[in-house]
Amino acid sequence: MTRKELIEQIRLKKSFLCIGLDVDIAKVPKHLLESEDPIFEFNKQIIDATQHLAVAYKPNTAFYECYGLDGWKSLEKTIQYLNQNYPEIFTIADAKRGDIGNTSTMYAKAFFENLNFDSVTVAPYMGSDSVEPFLAFEDKFTIMLALTSNKGGLDFQAQSLISEEKLYQNVLKQSLTWKNNEQLMYVVGATKADYFKDIRKIVPHHFLLVPGVGAQGGNLQDVCKYGLNEEIGLLINSSRGIIYASQDKDFAKVAAEKASELQQEMELILSYKQ
Amino acid sequence: MTRKELIEQIRLKKSFLCIGLDVDIAKVPKHLLESEDPIFEFNKQIIDATQHLAVAYKPNTAFYECYGLDGWKSLEKTIQYLNQNYPEIFTIADAKRGDIGNTSTMYAKAFFENLNFDSVTVAPYMGSDSVEPFLAFEDKFTIMLALTSNKGGLDFQAQSLISEEKLYQNVLKQSLTWKNNEQLMYVVGATKADYFKDIRKIVPHHFLLVPGVGAQGGNLQDVCKYGLNEEIGLLINSSRGIIYASQDKDFAKVAAEKASELQQEMELILSYKQ
Repeated sequence: MTRKELIEQIRLKKSFLCIGLDVDIAKVPKHLLESEDPIFEFNKQIIDATQHLAVAYKPNTAFYECYGLDGWKSLEKTIQYLNQNYPEIFTIADAKRGDIGNTSTMYAKAFFENLNFDSVTVAPYMGSDSVEPFLAFEDKFTIMLALTSNKGGLDFQAQSLISEEKLYQNVLKQSLTWKNNEQLMYVVGATKADYFKDIRKIVPHHFLLVPGVGAQGGNLQDVCKYGLNEEIGLLINSSRGIIYASQDKDFAKVAAEKASELQQEMELILSYKQ
Repeated sequence: MTRKELIEQIRLKKSFLCIGLDVDIAKVPKHLLESEDPIFEFNKQIIDATQHLAVAYKPNTAFYECYGLDGWKSLEKTIQYLNQNYPEIFTIADAKRGDIGNTSTMYAKAFFENLNFDSVTVAPYMGSDSVEPFLAFEDKFTIMLALTSNKGGLDFQAQSLISEEKLYQNVLKQSLTWKNNEQLMYVVGATKADYFKDIRKIVPHHFLLVPGVGAQGGNLQDVCKYGLNEEIGLLINSSRGIIYASQDKDFAKVAAEKASELQQEMELILSYKQ
């Protein structure tokens, strides 16, 4: 998918909502456990019920890998289902990968070619040549960790450098010099809305994936105040707040209600913005 | 596996060699391509031919994930083969994972429980609560990126902080305060032998996994000079230099010859050390 197509979808749906498919089998409604592949069945029903309200879905690979081969199969079926039925949806493999050059190329092939995701999340610690192999894929996006919203996020990301900038600022600045950096997006945690103003000074045009709205405590309006740019430039993720809003037979319907609340809030924010 | 058992194996085999199983199907000898699972067959023959010379094997997950379900199956068969036939071997899932707490727990389950590896490599960028979930698993080791040998390794890892220490030094120091930090090991690239002296001041007792000997250009004696400690404390990895030494029918035999050269060099170094 191109950046232009993603922005068109956001304007069409009046939504920049991403739904995280972090599916824990312990939280899947009991009646689904009898189906052949409960995780895929859960995802399918969530997707069908919410696809008109969201522009992106983000399976977190850890929740599939922990079930081994069966889990990888559920992941494969989920992305195939999305690509076949809703090709207009932007798909994110939340995998936090990153390694030396030839290995990063293999990871890029895994997610961009074998599974055919539109994007993958990566970690910056190993530097330019660990990320550039991902950026080499046309019409695919690489979403790099910048500032995360977990407690330990500040341990290293907020370290002050001798240049007096913080590490995450340096990560953002350096990444703008990398080849094909227009294919980059950044993960920025929503519980640090104050930081968005600062981050937008460094990366005014790139999309930010914001994972912490909802269960992790971030506030949508705070994030939008400084995070939105002239082409929206935000994807706001909610996982648990939507997919586990009900753990009963009505889970998909209740998930759609929760997604709709966020979409309406986004529609209102977008209308003020115009 | 416990630390004590690993050290016993090193002393018994007079080797601290780790063999990287980064298997690219394009480099697998042609006669193996007819077998049902060429990557597993390749690994099996490499392992059988070299297991008396090495104490550890390190499949890099990227090289399996890029083949989707089939690749994950090859990875599963490889670790099962190692665990069933050579339980004394230390196994490393070179996966470079790391995410917020509950997600890191899922990754830990994937590699420590579902696949039953002894250890997994992780990235530090997301901080303490992204690594501690891995450290919670008894008799399992978490090998964290500290200083890597790729060109971009210096982009962020060597950034000077206001405290005048480098980021990688800060990563090492902070990690010593984390819960169960005795289950940590560190990835330190072999092309930066000068750094080993400095790193040993911060982490004198922990094991270091050194991935850059051989194809990536590191020198074994340089690394050992400053890297060895009273309980050896080093695992030296070689991947391409061993497994692709021949791409013909004799690949396993030639791999064993290359592994034997490194083992003999290690035996000599250990004899001087005593």
